[in-house]
Amino acid sequence: MFTVEQALDAIIAEVAAPVAARVPLGESLGLVLAEDIDSDVDTPPFDKALMDGYAVRAADVTSGRAELRFLEEVMAGQVPTRAVEPGWATRIMTGAPLPAGADAVVRVEDTQFRDSKEPAVVAIDGAPVTVGQSIMRQGTSTQRGQRVLNSGTPLRPQEIGTLAESGRDQVAVYHRPRVAILATGDELVPVNEIPQPGQIRNSNESMLAAQIQRAGGEPVPLGIARDERANLRERIEAGLACDLLLLSGGVSAGKLDLVPSELQAAGVRQVFHKVRVKPGKPLWFGVSERSKKDANPIHKGCYVFGLPGNPVSSMVCCEIFVRTALRRLLGIEPQRPLAVSARLEHEYRHQGNRPTYHPAQMESSLTGRTVSIVSWQGSSDLRATTAANGMVCFPAGEAVYSAGTVMDVYPW
Amino acid sequence: MFTVEQALDAIIAEVAAPVAARVPLGESLGLVLAEDIDSDVDTPPFDKALMDGYAVRAADVTSGRAELRFLEEVMAGQVPTRAVEPGWATRIMTGAPLPAGADAVVRVEDTQFRDSKEPAVVAIDGAPVTVGQSIMRQGTSTQRGQRVLNSGTPLRPQEIGTLAESGRDQVAVYHRPRVAILATGDELVPVNEIPQPGQIRNSNESMLAAQIQRAGGEPVPLGIARDERANLRERIEAGLACDLLLLSGGVSAGKLDLVPSELQAAGVRQVFHKVRVKPGKPLWFGVSERSKKDANPIHKGCYVFGLPGNPVSSMVCCEIFVRTALRRLLGIEPQRPLAVSARLEHEYRHQGNRPTYHPAQMESSLTGRTVSIVSWQGSSDLRATTAANGMVCFPAGEAVYSAGTVMDVYPW
Repeated sequence: MFTVEQALDAIIAEVAAPVAARVPLGESLGLVLAEDIDSDVDTPPFDKALMDGYAVRAADVTSGRAELRFLEEVMAGQVPTRAVEPGWATRIMTGAPLPAGADAVVRVEDTQFRDSKEPAVVAIDGAPVTVGQSIMRQGTSTQRGQRVLNSGTPLRPQEIGTLAESGRDQVAVYHRPRVAILATGDELVPVNEIPQPGQIRNSNESMLAAQIQRAGGEPVPLGIARDERANLRERIEAGLACDLLLLSGGVSAGKLDLVPSELQAAGVRQVFHKVRVKPGKPLWFGVSERSKKDANPIHKGCYVFGLPGNPVSSMVCCEIFVRTALRRLLGIEPQRPLAVSARLEHEYRHQGNRPTYHPAQMESSLTGRTVSIVSWQGSSDLRATTAANGMVCFPAGEAVYSAGTVMDVYPW
Repeated sequence: MFTVEQALDAIIAEVAAPVAARVPLGESLGLVLAEDIDSDVDTPPFDKALMDGYAVRAADVTSGRAELRFLEEVMAGQVPTRAVEPGWATRIMTGAPLPAGADAVVRVEDTQFRDSKEPAVVAIDGAPVTVGQSIMRQGTSTQRGQRVLNSGTPLRPQEIGTLAESGRDQVAVYHRPRVAILATGDELVPVNEIPQPGQIRNSNESMLAAQIQRAGGEPVPLGIARDERANLRERIEAGLACDLLLLSGGVSAGKLDLVPSELQAAGVRQVFHKVRVKPGKPLWFGVSERSKKDANPIHKGCYVFGLPGNPVSSMVCCEIFVRTALRRLLGIEPQRPLAVSARLEHEYRHQGNRPTYHPAQMESSLTGRTVSIVSWQGSSDLRATTAANGMVCFPAGEAVYSAGTVMDVYPW
């Protein structure tokens, strides 16, 4: 039986490197940049006014008071037609290019415009004016040809704005994986049905789809497969057209657990079955490398997870193992689950023959992070996880963890 | 001029309470529940096997060893047909209902099935068996009629799974606001064009759309409006059909800043114009309460923000002010921006005549949170924000902040 570390190693070793695809900039939020970006322009593209006011020569207004002659007006989007000579001023709007000769902008609030004479007069009464005041020089933020973003950068709004400044309305990112979700089991009924004796609702599909969506994948729900070979095989075939296929249920040791044998029949090579972890021991992982008839250049194979059917087992395995595969495909570093350290809020006794991921609530503050263990009845008790924002990892064995012990926590 | 606090108060006072709408469960991630949810079933719905194995009477296997007679087999989705009497055992699958009479499950790994006799024999050789072993009792996680989720709960995967267990394939959530984004200015060209002298690309649309998407709204990009009344008015009218309308540019004091007057002409009541904040001073906020011809019952009006055109000004105003309106419409608490405290990593001197929101990089660890000020050239320097994951707030005035000073940080 693999340890968690061995299982994660195997997933990272098997899952192919991420594949770049070009998407519209508006669909790139949260994806990872797959190309280096050099700016094709200076930003700002010219010496730019940062205020509405008058472009002047600072030497004309060192005292903060002056009367200058009005030269012309430059709106945003226009270009100055004349240089500002000593004793002159050009009306300028925020964002407009500074005229030649000018080296400062006086804000409009400190000026009065008097057009009784010809030329009109700009009377200035404010603080002493210094060279560069209320101006942003061409290329201060970014110079043409400068590297502005590196391949591997996750795209947030500020990176998306920077890409737009650099003229990229399409951008190469690592492809968002499509993740098929197939619940298996004769005991399952759709969510909108009332379960009869022996039946339960297929809650895993909705939960897993939300986990995949949150993690940056595109969920593809495939409904319920019955514990019957032909039905299962057909739906597995459909799922293998996606980048990942998650099956829930059907991987423990029972007689009707057809999933592993049907996956192998469909050409999926088993990489591991069972992991020393609680919940989630029956986890199955395999790889389908067949070329596809509907060959998508992005689709290099399908990575298949057989998740245990109990909801918290499915959820935990998705967080630890499936998300590792997703991070690899999405180009997100680090690929392994990232634990954060937090101090246990209260003493807690834990006992288990496998490492246990237990729902927990973490709080952060100026002075550090703490974690509280939430009450939890085991792998069928999904409701308990609604009081949690992560899981704390207890090693195998029995121990009393005193308040203040530093624990590894995996935030959800 | 309003302070930031006065502006936030005004936004919260003006924006209507959130409106509930029923959506498919699969579209609810990140939205806030707008109804209380009581479970319509016990979870588990019956005493349930947690392992594949044999349902037994614990009293028959107190030593861990026994030979029991084989009664029947219950698959998941089936119901037991016979009670387990002393000396008998029923084969049971994970998730299947426990037969009457049985009070424990022995895992299949500790058993041997011998069908040479009639009835067949189940030989058990493992640890002593206790009452309740490998069983989850009916209703342990949730009892029928029990409140499982309260109105106001943000929906994460575990809440979505819990809603599915409770039979909700549709759920009442607070409506996801549609947010129109309209960039204004003759100096703007689309992202895919090469700016000519005096022009810049419309990078704000892409950036604001990503900010809105990340914050849970649905961005509706409206392109570029020219500094010309008829064109601006037509696009403002289109934007007013959304829940929010963001205009970028055109709200500072320049002669061509038509936006405030055109908004008022379109029946938008100004609530405030200008806020004592840097960047972002020219911010404009107003409300359109007109009834709409294409009356959408969810659409109670439109809240209009005139954002300054410089990219970092737009970004910061969106984070502080627009997101407050979005949280109000989405039912997210608290509605005001939530500062976290972090200690300054290095000494920093700051000077400004208004409270300043400065790009900064925050790090969290076991021992607390620290924040570093990133190099930033002002409101046109968007690229600087790609090195930041939030902004630190400096009060107005000049001061030296020593390393270790506790600062308010607003994460992005």
